[in-house]
Amino acid sequence: MEKKLTRDKVFYAFSTDLEPVMRVAQGEEFVLETHDCFAGQLKSEKDLLDGLDWDRVNPATGPVFIDNVNPGDVLRVDLVKVKVVGQSTMVTLPGEGVLGDKIAQMETVILKYQDNHVVFRDKISIPMAPMVGVIGVAPAEGRIPNGEPAAHGGNMDCTLITEGVSVYFTANVPGALFGCGDFHAVMGDGEIVICGAETPGEIRLKAQVIPELKGLATPFIETSDLFAAVASAGTLDQASSDATHNMADLLTQFASLSINDAGLLMSLVGHLKVCQVVDPQKTARFEFPKWVLKEYGFQMPR
Amino acid sequence: MEKKLTRDKVFYAFSTDLEPVMRVAQGEEFVLETHDCFAGQLKSEKDLLDGLDWDRVNPATGPVFIDNVNPGDVLRVDLVKVKVVGQSTMVTLPGEGVLGDKIAQMETVILKYQDNHVVFRDKISIPMAPMVGVIGVAPAEGRIPNGEPAAHGGNMDCTLITEGVSVYFTANVPGALFGCGDFHAVMGDGEIVICGAETPGEIRLKAQVIPELKGLATPFIETSDLFAAVASAGTLDQASSDATHNMADLLTQFASLSINDAGLLMSLVGHLKVCQVVDPQKTARFEFPKWVLKEYGFQMPR
Repeated sequence: MEKKLTRDKVFYAFSTDLEPVMRVAQGEEFVLETHDCFAGQLKSEKDLLDGLDWDRVNPATGPVFIDNVNPGDVLRVDLVKVKVVGQSTMVTLPGEGVLGDKIAQMETVILKYQDNHVVFRDKISIPMAPMVGVIGVAPAEGRIPNGEPAAHGGNMDCTLITEGVSVYFTANVPGALFGCGDFHAVMGDGEIVICGAETPGEIRLKAQVIPELKGLATPFIETSDLFAAVASAGTLDQASSDATHNMADLLTQFASLSINDAGLLMSLVGHLKVCQVVDPQKTARFEFPKWVLKEYGFQMPR
Repeated sequence: MEKKLTRDKVFYAFSTDLEPVMRVAQGEEFVLETHDCFAGQLKSEKDLLDGLDWDRVNPATGPVFIDNVNPGDVLRVDLVKVKVVGQSTMVTLPGEGVLGDKIAQMETVILKYQDNHVVFRDKISIPMAPMVGVIGVAPAEGRIPNGEPAAHGGNMDCTLITEGVSVYFTANVPGALFGCGDFHAVMGDGEIVICGAETPGEIRLKAQVIPELKGLATPFIETSDLFAAVASAGTLDQASSDATHNMADLLTQFASLSINDAGLLMSLVGHLKVCQVVDPQKTARFEFPKWVLKEYGFQMPR
């Protein structure tokens, strides 16, 4: 019988003391239904943000206890299948986001789905590119609201986190206490007005400890053709420096390049990119192509 | 007879009082040979940065006086043809760049060209993607060393600035006093160790005032499929905010979108990206797809 959580099984902060609502074995597939970031509170364009219950934003479905995971273990989470359902919601809020100084009118906009496109104002039809905004594990201590990104994951809003990708996390508690939510049907890097196409969805996952990766700086992403180190901090400058250092650690400590070769190649073929700048913690990623590390004999242990 | 400047015709700071070395008509093609950012001082891997004459870095070829350009005019500069010649040079310098805290050894690395690839350490063969690091016009006042990016252009190190692209600048002085140099055979976004594949090159250009664009926030880039607003500031956070606001200005003031529609679409299909973080002024760009503005009836006046 398939293991599945419906979207009423949510939590609003990653923390060490959450009660798991499901237990899975390593490598076992499981399915999570997810809410949009407003927990479905905005049902039409008449529902504005000033009526929102802010205690119910950024729900993540879970937490899921993964068997035989111990603190310090690096966990590879595979996003086997990601889909969005229903419709998308976007909002503007004066004072919030990068253009908050310009935006004067609070507004809710509903975007319908049509033939794998998201339709904006019945005018602009945008190809869907579903992604997962909030994804993570319990932090080492305390309680981190799901709206915040940090070393445990959380609201990274990284456009790379989509179907077919693996995301690596370091477990801080037994079982890791995994959860995710806040899908976007499509979103640009930066998420500059504070939202993408916010949508409910469903995701199929599996998770497995990779012993050889103990010590990897996480969160870390692997796609079919690149690696990405993700870091969040109070400024984009700091998040960028952290993500760059974390990628340099992979290249020197795991792929055994000299620091000079790592730096020069990162300057040549690596890309420093923006995930989001509005959470208000900022998130950056450093992308590096897998083919270059293959030439140095490095592949991720599976 | 073709108008061409050889690479001995360089200047090291954009300023209002430069003497033009060539005069061209609007729309007239001209060719500039360019030095690498070290003015060719590093000829082999034995030439280290500690022997460099720092008064001769980031040369730009020019300045070129463009006829009938007046202060306040927006100038479209078309990069008709960009090629690199010779070989590329890369350097590491302890204390400099994002990994300056990790890099202990000063080094110069020469990269040869082979079949449109740049070869690193005789091991990694990287497809060439030639781009222009320094490009700009005289500033409104004073003297800005070519190593610095600002509103006049300068050392933006933006990977979009390549063959086939148009770059828009606002002239601050009669004739604009245009120049460029500091090509890279390939470079990643961020330029994290302070250099790309630094190379001499040659560029074919033409320039033209676009009266309908007066007031456009520049520097601004147009490629075959996107627009990009470029901004530089002391922090990446500030540069990102400025680039985002400049793109919002295009969408609202020139393409006539409401600020809410502009912001929502920028959040959905726009991308905030990093150009460079090491100059030490930081440069960011905001990219927006042209096809979306076409749906709103907007195209760049030609």
